Amino acid sequence: MSSSFGTLFRVSTYGESHGLAVGCIVDGCPPQITLTEADIQVELDRRRPGQSKIVTQRKEGDKCQILSGVVDGQTLGTPISIMVPNEDQRSDAYKEMETAYRPSHADFTYDAKYGVRAVAGGGRSSARETIGRVAAGAIARKVIEASCAGYQCLAYVKTVRDIEAHPTPEQITRESIESNIVRTADPVAAEKMVELIDEIRRQGNSVGGVVECVVRGVPVGLGEPVFDKLEADLAKAMLSLPATKGFEIGSGFAGTQLTGLEHNDEFYMEGDRVRTRTNRSGGIQGGISNGEEIIFRVAFKPTATLLREQNTVTKDGEAATLKARGRHDPCVLPRAVPIVEAMVHLVLCDHLLRQRAQCSR
Amino acid sequence: MSSSFGTLFRVSTYGESHGLAVGCIVDGCPPQITLTEADIQVELDRRRPGQSKIVTQRKEGDKCQILSGVVDGQTLGTPISIMVPNEDQRSDAYKEMETAYRPSHADFTYDAKYGVRAVAGGGRSSARETIGRVAAGAIARKVIEASCAGYQCLAYVKTVRDIEAHPTPEQITRESIESNIVRTADPVAAEKMVELIDEIRRQGNSVGGVVECVVRGVPVGLGEPVFDKLEADLAKAMLSLPATKGFEIGSGFAGTQLTGLEHNDEFYMEGDRVRTRTNRSGGIQGGISNGEEIIFRVAFKPTATLLREQNTVTKDGEAATLKARGRHDPCVLPRAVPIVEAMVHLVLCDHLLRQRAQCSR
Amino acid sequence: MSSSFGTLFRVSTYGESHGLAVGCIVDGCPPQITLTEADIQVELDRRRPGQSKIVTQRKEGDKCQILSGVVDGQTLGTPISIMVPNEDQRSDAYKEMETAYRPSHADFTYDAKYGVRAVAGGGRSSARETIGRVAAGAIARKVIEASCAGYQCLAYVKTVRDIEAHPTPEQITRESIESNIVRTADPVAAEKMVELIDEIRRQGNSVGGVVECVVRGVPVGLGEPVFDKLEADLAKAMLSLPATKGFEIGSGFAGTQLTGLEHNDEFYMEGDRVRTRTNRSGGIQGGISNGEEIIFRVAFKPTATLLREQNTVTKDGEAATLKARGRHDPCVLPRAVPIVEAMVHLVLCDHLLRQRAQCSR
Amino acid sequence: MSSSFGTLFRVSTYGESHGLAVGCIVDGCPPQITLTEADIQVELDRRRPGQSKIVTQRKEGDKCQILSGVVDGQTLGTPISIMVPNEDQRSDAYKEMETAYRPSHADFTYDAKYGVRAVAGGGRSSARETIGRVAAGAIARKVIEASCAGYQCLAYVKTVRDIEAHPTPEQITRESIESNIVRTADPVAAEKMVELIDEIRRQGNSVGGVVECVVRGVPVGLGEPVFDKLEADLAKAMLSLPATKGFEIGSGFAGTQLTGLEHNDEFYMEGDRVRTRTNRSGGIQGGISNGEEIIFRVAFKPTATLLREQNTVTKDGEAATLKARGRHDPCVLPRAVPIVEAMVHLVLCDHLLRQRAQCSR
Repeated sequence: MSSSFGTLFRVSTYGESHGLAVGCIVDGCPPQITLTEADIQVELDRRRPGQSKIVTQRKEGDKCQILSGVVDGQTLGTPISIMVPNEDQRSDAYKEMETAYRPSHADFTYDAKYGVRAVAGGGRSSARETIGRVAAGAIARKVIEASCAGYQCLAYVKTVRDIEAHPTPEQITRESIESNIVRTADPVAAEKMVELIDEIRRQGNSVGGVVECVVRGVPVGLGEPVFDKLEADLAKAMLSLPATKGFEIGSGFAGTQLTGLEHNDEFYMEGDRVRTRTNRSGGIQGGISNGEEIIFRVAFKPTATLLREQNTVTKDGEAATLKARGRHDPCVLPRAVPIVEAMVHLVLCDHLLRQRAQCSR
Repeated sequence: MSSSFGTLFRVSTYGESHGLAVGCIVDGCPPQITLTEADIQVELDRRRPGQSKIVTQRKEGDKCQILSGVVDGQTLGTPISIMVPNEDQRSDAYKEMETAYRPSHADFTYDAKYGVRAVAGGGRSSARETIGRVAAGAIARKVIEASCAGYQCLAYVKTVRDIEAHPTPEQITRESIESNIVRTADPVAAEKMVELIDEIRRQGNSVGGVVECVVRGVPVGLGEPVFDKLEADLAKAMLSLPATKGFEIGSGFAGTQLTGLEHNDEFYMEGDRVRTRTNRSGGIQGGISNGEEIIFRVAFKPTATLLREQNTVTKDGEAATLKARGRHDPCVLPRAVPIVEAMVHLVLCDHLLRQRAQCSR
Repeated sequence: MSSSFGTLFRVSTYGESHGLAVGCIVDGCPPQITLTEADIQVELDRRRPGQSKIVTQRKEGDKCQILSGVVDGQTLGTPISIMVPNEDQRSDAYKEMETAYRPSHADFTYDAKYGVRAVAGGGRSSARETIGRVAAGAIARKVIEASCAGYQCLAYVKTVRDIEAHPTPEQITRESIESNIVRTADPVAAEKMVELIDEIRRQGNSVGGVVECVVRGVPVGLGEPVFDKLEADLAKAMLSLPATKGFEIGSGFAGTQLTGLEHNDEFYMEGDRVRTRTNRSGGIQGGISNGEEIIFRVAFKPTATLLREQNTVTKDGEAATLKARGRHDPCVLPRAVPIVEAMVHLVLCDHLLRQRAQCSR
Repeated sequence: MSSSFGTLFRVSTYGESHGLAVGCIVDGCPPQITLTEADIQVELDRRRPGQSKIVTQRKEGDKCQILSGVVDGQTLGTPISIMVPNEDQRSDAYKEMETAYRPSHADFTYDAKYGVRAVAGGGRSSARETIGRVAAGAIARKVIEASCAGYQCLAYVKTVRDIEAHPTPEQITRESIESNIVRTADPVAAEKMVELIDEIRRQGNSVGGVVECVVRGVPVGLGEPVFDKLEADLAKAMLSLPATKGFEIGSGFAGTQLTGLEHNDEFYMEGDRVRTRTNRSGGIQGGISNGEEIIFRVAFKPTATLLREQNTVTKDGEAATLKARGRHDPCVLPRAVPIVEAMVHLVLCDHLLRQRAQCSR
């Protein structure tokens, strides 16, 4: 199942970039959760193109409609279908790509796999596919919040190429992240990042970076011991996003420089709650959440589509050059922030229901 | 399903560290694949404790038995059940752990999740759980090899703490990796790594590092575009292994330092085959294999169990100190190599069958 | 997963009776299958209310739109989303049902399960839910036909209450079944059935009956030996349809009156093909198709919603009487015929892909 | 997945008739359920061959071992692996079947599907496969009983060929059913049934019949509205059993003879509990349990293997005759009773956990 995610809280997405619509079905949502289109729209708006000068200028309203599963602002427990019509269907901008494969894009592999491909806008490999994820994530978040007071999932741009943000823990808030167009939590770095992206945009080039995500208020006990470890499902969720090249949790790759004595998180009691003095585990031990903050990072490569000439080959095996026209996205990271959060909501909501099924009475 | 992995080629593992046995069922294996216990045993022997002075000295023969699914050295298409009896059931070595939680281990989270726990040997969180994976991986490999000539999956230790191997591509062979007890592909680094691990072992401490894996001969077209991207399933597979903290593919985290122009892999024709001049994609584009080498890295933290006193708390919320007795594993990396390979076999075999189902005629 | 069906060829349906739309996503469809909205519409039209005097008169055009997964009349291998807007949203006709539970309907159990319910039209328990199934079934049929020449799936009304059709094998054709409004294959029985249903309709009462389904041209080898036996998946498919109370295959319940000697189907050779002289097995042996006709029967109870006063209770636990107003469906069987066929297509298409995955080379 | 059943409480079975062992893994079992081998053995003993003169005389102790998932008589929440070694491995009794296909058995279809087959004892199509189901069912039952006081699942032989049992509701008890070797609830019918089976056995022939199952104490709200209706999952469970040809629930096929007015189950209040005056729904409405008794019937055909000469063909396409030697099972129904119950436990336990996941707080 390429297009479904989750065991109990399960989203199935659909939609090509330039078809009639994109959207999703969410199956397994608990009943009696308050839900309106506005709850979903607010997240779609954060993901939408054209928000600022540093992201792609494609014009899309991305207005969502709930087609089923909700009556009188309350979920029914039945599948919730959400549809977002595609407005910008300019297929002519994709003439060249009909034959020439964009380097480091999915054009060639789709053709090789399926023998057929929706050329316009990259079809299913377009970032528009993530609309269904963001919509579903907004629902998942409401389900989690209904039983986990204090739940907070905050992704922010940690680096853009070599510019790194160093926010204090107190700076990592929704307000601070949304206060700048690059969506980082450190105002000093924010300015430099915007400058860099704008410069790169003018060159028709692109840059990548790292998104960090901090999740607070996750109950102890989520995740399963073997294949469905919580970090394994988070890693899959993140690497399923377009343009991602890496995932690390807690101490991550840098943690390999420490010895066990230096790396271990000592336990101590805080009242009647078991806590750890450090959090190199990143909030998960043995695949199961331990109640500390879940912290992970995701690497996003520079966008593949450039307004610069590149060497490539055609469908028929001829050498060719290709240069995209019109709009391009110099840096996906600002818009990746709400998408990373959506995937976290989906993973945690699924494990919350799984935990309820197996371990509650 | 905590303990099952794969959609079509599906392994379900079972077994606590100190129960009667560990093992697995493999469901969905194609019929008429030649298979004997020796095919599986050779990989189990690579994973086995006690192989050398730098790994844990637990004494286990780890002899596998095929209980079903194979007749006359041929798979039947029915479930293959493999059992490995546990020989070393010294539960008394775990007295202290009955009450005190080992730092950065799964003791606390298991208790918090289930309200009950197999104390001896960490139960299900023990590395013994990976026996079922390695056995299943050996079968998956045979299925892949039956239709992909030239398939080769070679993991090796890339770094141990700050010592890094720099093998040439030609050095990355099964023979070179197996020629040293640390399982790296660079003989110079090998010596230093062994020295470091041995020193750390004497201190009762532990170290981590990075395993790199190179997969050759993967057909074009494996993987699915959205949630089940090939790199997403690899990431999940790797992060589901005990002690892993990160995964990166191709250019990985370092790739975020490049611009799009620098990062993109140009296409060219090699005869009638579409190739890329560089391989920052790591052999996967848009979630689908492109026929180049799949290359990824996995970070393993230093082992949590130490022969050193550490601060912790007990089940009853009392401060305590804990010091493991007897054997310990100063570095999991040499034994992680066959486990990483097994998980790759499982992921690729599953996607091979999925591709056959959807896109063949 | 309440609302998904199939392992590889997987349909997820959504939609309440009186919401904005009903529809489905089909995931896992092979690429390069020719498909247009007309292919789907023809089956939806057979399922549509208001086709004749003996079925419900609800006015619905049931026009389908393909939102994704198809370009230039060809499937892409990506999810196919199909939407059918609801036109008839007369919620006021359901005032009484807001509080009083319709006997033998799902009103009470939905409330008991979810604590909330879409009152209008029965919400998700409405027969409108089957639109997504019929649409997906039309796609599945095209996939099967692309590789199984001679595939034919013919359901027809076998009995209405005590009137039984006795068609000859030659009479069981699409033309003969579609030549009468009750969709039976025996013209003599057809007349009597229409008469009976019309009489029952005038009484505001309802009748049930049996649908028989004959499937020709199914390749040998579909179905799996244990839980996913072909007849088990067909049984689940049929009992998942509203108003069904029974399923039997081949000799069915009557077969229990025979001894083994009388019941066994002797094998013989017809050219180089293994055939059976009788077909009490109903085309499936050991869960796997044997190449003979698959024959099964499904019992449909009389519709629960009646234009007659019935005793019941309210949501608040008060005794009450209830009498539906307006339209009602005196007999679901004529419209059940295309729905039964759709479910057969879905089961067989899924097993066709599964067989390809595991047993082809 | 041929060999797995259930979404959350999931059993995977393995084992050929004449391999080393048969067994299962149960994944998803809640922790802290008391469980011993004796809990499982009692049900395996009811299923075991050789219990009485009217069932097959194969000699098997069928002693189960719990290999994992249980410590100190309590489930851990991790996979429970159960193994039953095969003792009777007389493969020579199957010489003839190596080439000639037994009529109405799975020999031909296995060969056609897989191109290979475990000849001895029918391999995976043997009734021994049901051992894993019965073992898992015994666990499921304990999980259900832990939260549903008054849960009772009672299957009994309703008919053997034309002899029908007519027990009063009070006679349907475990004691009364176990008081006779045919496992019916009507002592008068029991005698006649035993006589008939014994007569048939002496002829080397076989008979079939119907098992009825009554389930009491099922909570309101189990089952899901669309594909995973409770009756659909029960139907699949039953038709996945060897030798079954039909399933009906509540009024079943006979219910098609009634009009809606006659068929509907009126609601009334019994204290604060919503009840129905009749139970033609069989305890399930709209796919969801309504709190009344769940009642269904399953048709079992006469056993295919006979001690009588039958016409058939060989693997090489030659006409042949075949006559089984030694033991045979004249009637599977007495031993089918615990297997039917096991499948009910599995279906209900899975839906109990699913309900907990989605609809509890």
